[in-house]
Amino acid sequence: MEPIILASSSPRRQETLKMLNIPYQVILSECDESFPDDMERSKVPEYVALNKLKAVVKSYTQDHEIPWILAADTMVLLDNELLGKPENYEEAVAYLQRLQGRTHQVITGLALFNGRLMYTASRSSVTNVTFAPMSAEEIDWYVGTGEWHGAAGGYRIQGLASCFISKIEGTNSNVVGLPISELYDMLKEQGYSFLE
Amino acid sequence: MEPIILASSSPRRQETLKMLNIPYQVILSECDESFPDDMERSKVPEYVALNKLKAVVKSYTQDHEIPWILAADTMVLLDNELLGKPENYEEAVAYLQRLQGRTHQVITGLALFNGRLMYTASRSSVTNVTFAPMSAEEIDWYVGTGEWHGAAGGYRIQGLASCFISKIEGTNSNVVGLPISELYDMLKEQGYSFLE
Repeated sequence: MEPIILASSSPRRQETLKMLNIPYQVILSECDESFPDDMERSKVPEYVALNKLKAVVKSYTQDHEIPWILAADTMVLLDNELLGKPENYEEAVAYLQRLQGRTHQVITGLALFNGRLMYTASRSSVTNVTFAPMSAEEIDWYVGTGEWHGAAGGYRIQGLASCFISKIEGTNSNVVGLPISELYDMLKEQGYSFLE
Repeated sequence: MEPIILASSSPRRQETLKMLNIPYQVILSECDESFPDDMERSKVPEYVALNKLKAVVKSYTQDHEIPWILAADTMVLLDNELLGKPENYEEAVAYLQRLQGRTHQVITGLALFNGRLMYTASRSSVTNVTFAPMSAEEIDWYVGTGEWHGAAGGYRIQGLASCFISKIEGTNSNVVGLPISELYDMLKEQGYSFLE
């Protein structure tokens, strides 16, 4: 299989590519992650993923062949507000207090550059995640595990947060940060095949 | 946390207990996994889990304290037929041919023995799993990865089958074989606490 440049430092995304046996290399470029104030919130992760992708594509000179490049951005959407990674313990507690006992959306934007065709494809994947009601003691215990570090919305579905997630509608991999069936579809559409 | 006896040889169930930091020990007893012909199919995994549990409980003598014991059974339900683990490559192909392009149910039965109260609790967890349409080539490739070995329905959602699973409604951990939020609830109800 051809190598893919991953424009993301997320260890979870790297683990997913490893599981899929896709050879990859991480390349990061500085990128403005802001978005227009009036943008529909559900479109933001795809917009940010495209900007992350463009920053890496630009770093290649036109006289060499550009490889496959993949970027992704994951956010939590609740009450039309986007929750990113909490900055500290208190913010993680505040996020969990808001998420417990109800359903929110996790949106991952994917952007893929096809170096052969010089073509950019992108899409969004949405998963509804339902948290069981959590007591103050349970929130405190969960945030105390430290899983909130670097996690959109302050929780990891693949970790101890699974104790409190009663249901999802969509895919686990989307919530982890790299929706596998959408990635597979996108790569297949662009002529990159896993079936080797 | 108190140790739990796991009446299952499944490495996936062991990995889940490890992730939850629950100390465990595997003890297996011979157990009849059959069920009455006229039993409602969706009740079978819980029935089999209870029989697995009873076989291990029986192996303890009454003059010693009996520990926490956990048993589970996972099956795929399609067209009112239960699919267990395929016996060979051909059966795995036949399963995937039936599962692709549609939705089936994965049912895990959980049974827990509370040694302090000499009480048995049990429940079932259901997740709807939707496969994207798969070509004959994709089925061949997937079954060729060998993931079907030891997997109910012939696929592993935590592995390469995730390329073809477009959606679930329920929880990933249920499909893997040990539904975490249900297990957490059940243990909490019985007075076993993770929050230590």
